Amino acid sequence: MSPQARAQLLRKMYSAAVAAADPMVVLPRHLPALPQGRTIVVGAGKAAYAMARAVEAHWKGQLEGVVVAPNMAADALPRIRVLEGSHPVPDAFSFVAARSILAAVAGLRPQDLVLALISGGGSALMALPASGVNFQEKQSITRALLRGGATIHELNVVRKHLSAIKGGRLAQAAAPAHVVTLVLSDIPGDEFGLVASGPTVPDISSCIDALAVLDRYDVIISAGLRKQLLDASLETPKPGDDCFLAGETRMIACAQDGLEAAAQVAREGGVTPLILSDRIEGESREVARVHAAIAQQVIRRGQPLGAPCVLLSGGETTVTVTGHGRGGRNTEFSLALALALQGQSGVSALSAGTDGIDGSSDAAGAIVDEDTLERARQLGLDPLTHLMDNDSFTLLSRIGTCIHTGPSGTNINDVRALLIAPETNTP
Amino acid sequence: MSPQARAQLLRKMYSAAVAAADPMVVLPRHLPALPQGRTIVVGAGKAAYAMARAVEAHWKGQLEGVVVAPNMAADALPRIRVLEGSHPVPDAFSFVAARSILAAVAGLRPQDLVLALISGGGSALMALPASGVNFQEKQSITRALLRGGATIHELNVVRKHLSAIKGGRLAQAAAPAHVVTLVLSDIPGDEFGLVASGPTVPDISSCIDALAVLDRYDVIISAGLRKQLLDASLETPKPGDDCFLAGETRMIACAQDGLEAAAQVAREGGVTPLILSDRIEGESREVARVHAAIAQQVIRRGQPLGAPCVLLSGGETTVTVTGHGRGGRNTEFSLALALALQGQSGVSALSAGTDGIDGSSDAAGAIVDEDTLERARQLGLDPLTHLMDNDSFTLLSRIGTCIHTGPSGTNINDVRALLIAPETNTP
Repeated sequence: MSPQARAQLLRKMYSAAVAAADPMVVLPRHLPALPQGRTIVVGAGKAAYAMARAVEAHWKGQLEGVVVAPNMAADALPRIRVLEGSHPVPDAFSFVAARSILAAVAGLRPQDLVLALISGGGSALMALPASGVNFQEKQSITRALLRGGATIHELNVVRKHLSAIKGGRLAQAAAPAHVVTLVLSDIPGDEFGLVASGPTVPDISSCIDALAVLDRYDVIISAGLRKQLLDASLETPKPGDDCFLAGETRMIACAQDGLEAAAQVAREGGVTPLILSDRIEGESREVARVHAAIAQQVIRRGQPLGAPCVLLSGGETTVTVTGHGRGGRNTEFSLALALALQGQSGVSALSAGTDGIDGSSDAAGAIVDEDTLERARQLGLDPLTHLMDNDSFTLLSRIGTCIHTGPSGTNINDVRALLIAPETNTP
Repeated sequence: MSPQARAQLLRKMYSAAVAAADPMVVLPRHLPALPQGRTIVVGAGKAAYAMARAVEAHWKGQLEGVVVAPNMAADALPRIRVLEGSHPVPDAFSFVAARSILAAVAGLRPQDLVLALISGGGSALMALPASGVNFQEKQSITRALLRGGATIHELNVVRKHLSAIKGGRLAQAAAPAHVVTLVLSDIPGDEFGLVASGPTVPDISSCIDALAVLDRYDVIISAGLRKQLLDASLETPKPGDDCFLAGETRMIACAQDGLEAAAQVAREGGVTPLILSDRIEGESREVARVHAAIAQQVIRRGQPLGAPCVLLSGGETTVTVTGHGRGGRNTEFSLALALALQGQSGVSALSAGTDGIDGSSDAAGAIVDEDTLERARQLGLDPLTHLMDNDSFTLLSRIGTCIHTGPSGTNINDVRALLIAPETNTP
């Protein structure tokens, strides 16, 4: 295949992955039966608006409610109020959102239904400090953890214990209503409790775990907060607690769905897909080197499978920021991959977030191929220098290989696809 | 399979990988025809002694020569002198070795044969600064690059340009003799020019590349050395130069051979092997997370293949040392993998160097499984703390999962094997 044909197939695979997580398609079949009482819709996350819209379009009964979504151009919904929040660092809007959601589920009865629409990004969009916790301190802790390169798992352990709404506390507030949670997962491994820090599911992490994360990243906290964590006064509701007895949680889409959809597109294009994992985590540039090594093995040895093939992976990598450039984990992966492949012909690779926005860039991700490094150098850009400065987006957008979609309204995390399809020799 | 059965199979796979690189087995068929003139054997590397022994055992004609091998208990050879050198940082013995080898190939004629036995580790064992380069400065540069986490590729680019024997300069010294190089490769990708910094093969890197590596890792060098690099007075011989016209280079064993041998053992044990790559590079703990994510995919989704299976990879990872503990890239990989798998049952993993010595440990590597973290904690050892302190060997040796073989006398780099074979449920 030519680099152009490869890029086209990769874009099609990416679109299929995003479409596999479109709430309008995947949510309706998970809606529960109409309750005897009221139906309250609440929710938070990058997919909150699209999920709410899908509920409004398919719900047969009365409903009301409020969800919080990232700042995006979208029409108001007839019955569900849509608030805008801030991401990835919570702000005053996140605070208002959390209060509104808690107010919406207050004073319910056992015959009422709470439909909780939970997706990635919800942690920042809906934020309210637990009693006795300072909002500014909570904010600066989140920033410090993001900067230090904490994993999403680690971030969530901390957030849950500092929050009045996360780690099961929303379910606590909604009791004794019946809580049905629909989850669109962006979490490697798809643990319910980690999507948007699990506002309606029991927490299995403890205050001590939260302290361990803070200490691991040398985050300085106030003596008061440390005391609250040490004496467990911030402990979250645990499995078996009353508030979870009348609840159920259903996954409506996850990373694997996106990878399977991309794999199907590959098959239809005559390319054999190999899904490596739906849950890859780790430092972006290092993860890229491992992916590159597997691609080289395909080319040199026909292992783990022969070309034409595509290596697929999902999950969420991390960038430990040490430079001052502009980029996200997907563009950083892409640039590091191009560097590791050193112009190897016959390989094109896509890495992009299904949410449509990668880190501090305005792209979803990028596509790289055998010409990427050379094209950058022709523009006077040194690829390694840009990588070291975490400036992958700047370089890749200058050579025009970024993928621009705008916010997709959904989020099943990243899709990486390495298409290995050398051009056929025509004499 | 039980954890014990898994460990047994993994050890058998590792032994097979090491045996696939035994010079006594793989070298003889690569010996060239007897020359009309003299035969001079020279060589350097972790396999130099075993390679020289294999030559002595199978060579039909006259021979003489000198090789340099790491410090190890071994009998003298009847005809080839064996020197001992220092690894991974060159010292005065390396200096003597390089001088002896250069002296052995001096004054030869076109009808003479130089048999160069080259294997990993040779870079440090045989070291002589190029004219005008200071030995102490060369040593401190190597140390700084190792400490900074430079890749083996980067190290070699620098070494070649500071050396009187590497990067093709040994071939230059041996001209006009016929030079046959037998290579036992420990280099991801098996580029001849990178094994022991390619003493007999043309160099494709330049002085400017060497300077770029030094600057990338902030290595401070003298003004004199910078000038010699900038004015290219240290440039190495290039492809097409006269000294390479009468030479040939043959690979006698490489990482892939070891992986294929391990795969065969797996098949015989009823386990399907999947070779991911023979050339994985990257930060050990991050590479471990990617391997763990693929293992989880096997367990959860039966992708990229179903259990019972073994994921195999070769190559050489890197540890950027920030702590003060004891370990190597294989034990660090092992501990990071155990942490990433969080006690996942049904998975055992081996990571070990085929040379038998992993970093600053005296083990070849280690095996970890679902009990590793728990056993460490029972001994009061916190796995994450030990990982952060680069102290993987201390922890893994305390719980008795290290693999001790002593120096193997060969080196096709690391073997990683993740055996995924859950115990069968017996009611």
